[in-house]
Amino acid sequence: MDKLFIIKIGGQIIDDEAKLASFLQSFAGIKEPKILIHGGGKLASALAEKLGVKQVMVEGRRITDAETLKIVTMVYAGLINKNIVAALQAKGCNAIGLCGADGNMITARKRKKGEIDYGFVGDVEKLHTKFIRGLLKKDLVPVLAPLTHDGKGHLLNTNADTIAQEIAGAMSAHYQVTLIYSFEKNGVLMHIDDASSVIKAMNKKEYEKLKKEGKISAGMIPKLDNAFLALKSGVKKVVIGKAEELKKLIAGRSGTTLSNG
Amino acid sequence: MDKLFIIKIGGQIIDDEAKLASFLQSFAGIKEPKILIHGGGKLASALAEKLGVKQVMVEGRRITDAETLKIVTMVYAGLINKNIVAALQAKGCNAIGLCGADGNMITARKRKKGEIDYGFVGDVEKLHTKFIRGLLKKDLVPVLAPLTHDGKGHLLNTNADTIAQEIAGAMSAHYQVTLIYSFEKNGVLMHIDDASSVIKAMNKKEYEKLKKEGKISAGMIPKLDNAFLALKSGVKKVVIGKAEELKKLIAGRSGTTLSNG
Repeated sequence: MDKLFIIKIGGQIIDDEAKLASFLQSFAGIKEPKILIHGGGKLASALAEKLGVKQVMVEGRRITDAETLKIVTMVYAGLINKNIVAALQAKGCNAIGLCGADGNMITARKRKKGEIDYGFVGDVEKLHTKFIRGLLKKDLVPVLAPLTHDGKGHLLNTNADTIAQEIAGAMSAHYQVTLIYSFEKNGVLMHIDDASSVIKAMNKKEYEKLKKEGKISAGMIPKLDNAFLALKSGVKKVVIGKAEELKKLIAGRSGTTLSNG
Repeated sequence: MDKLFIIKIGGQIIDDEAKLASFLQSFAGIKEPKILIHGGGKLASALAEKLGVKQVMVEGRRITDAETLKIVTMVYAGLINKNIVAALQAKGCNAIGLCGADGNMITARKRKKGEIDYGFVGDVEKLHTKFIRGLLKKDLVPVLAPLTHDGKGHLLNTNADTIAQEIAGAMSAHYQVTLIYSFEKNGVLMHIDDASSVIKAMNKKEYEKLKKEGKISAGMIPKLDNAFLALKSGVKKVVIGKAEELKKLIAGRSGTTLSNG
């Protein structure tokens, strides 16, 4: 099977022009088939503030009312997505910017109101990998904004880490997939205040133990849960680490490498 | 050669939820290969006003400074494009929303400062029809936002009528193309205040004559110039008319049909 790199870029990198450009330079340099999935950084919140649309976050997730859905659609699928595509094109990388509605790529179900009403937030229901594989076969590089659709005409806001995990899992039937979660941190840290305390390797058992002991930061838990789900569904390798060190992350010389073992 | 319908939707239809939905229903019903190109309506101006970014229009063209480029990227490639895609998907039409940077589809040159500095506005330089043909062959329906890129990492704001004309012309080497400019008016009017005074058919000579006599409204001239350019470059048929009558426009039973004859 051919190799496929699925790279999620998130956190503060999106908001930092110089860091993002450096990351995209490394990304464009990957010779193998690749997919980029980006988050929204703080740009959506900044626009919402300017427009006077109050944002409510619950455990790092954005409550998405109708006005907020408009904002994330503009910022994620428009501003961030198309600027990344133009930047990659300038580096000779034939990027194509899409969201989950395009080509009916990702259908999702609007999350049911529980204790919390997340609004227009969707949980992935079905992935159409044939469409994605068709793009890769044409040497196109999909750049995905974290929006899905319900098949009934509505866009839904969907967590980018989860989309990366779902695509990585589904593509594992066809490719040898490496999934990389990259952001501003060096990796999973043993001590949250010590940037040098990166855990170089961690398996599921070690993760569960550290989680129980309260040693994994709250923000890192959903990311790690996604990572182990991806491994469970056939992804060969998951690495979490610093976006600026993408080449090292791929080579396994930086960040935290996770395994199911 | 196979038929191809290239449909531009613009004007006030974009801002009118019910009219847009009705138009998209008709569009989805077209059995032949098709491409939709949309403008931005008044949504970009409305967002600019909310954000306090002053908009300057010169002869119907938007002066695009850096902040305005961000706004049109958000509104055209994000909000409008992805909502149209989701709506078409719900009608069983396998839409894919793109701008000119995606797949390196349309490269453009930043317009040089003349008497007027249009800012980040681009004039089409090169169209990569192979990419578009690849999408059509996979039964995908391209939905295009009026943005291009310069190949050096910058997005550029480009007139949607012109993009429609350029694509229609270039695709005429491969398809029998019908180009439809649809909006809120019934067609080209003989008397601007009389909505029923639609000119049913007009050739280039008749157009030039009416233009000289000052009978063609200023807003209609660039559209008609684009239409005749398209015919000159091999497009079979150009029709200008009311978006809600798309089926009739296709059948030649509504609007103004143009010919080079």
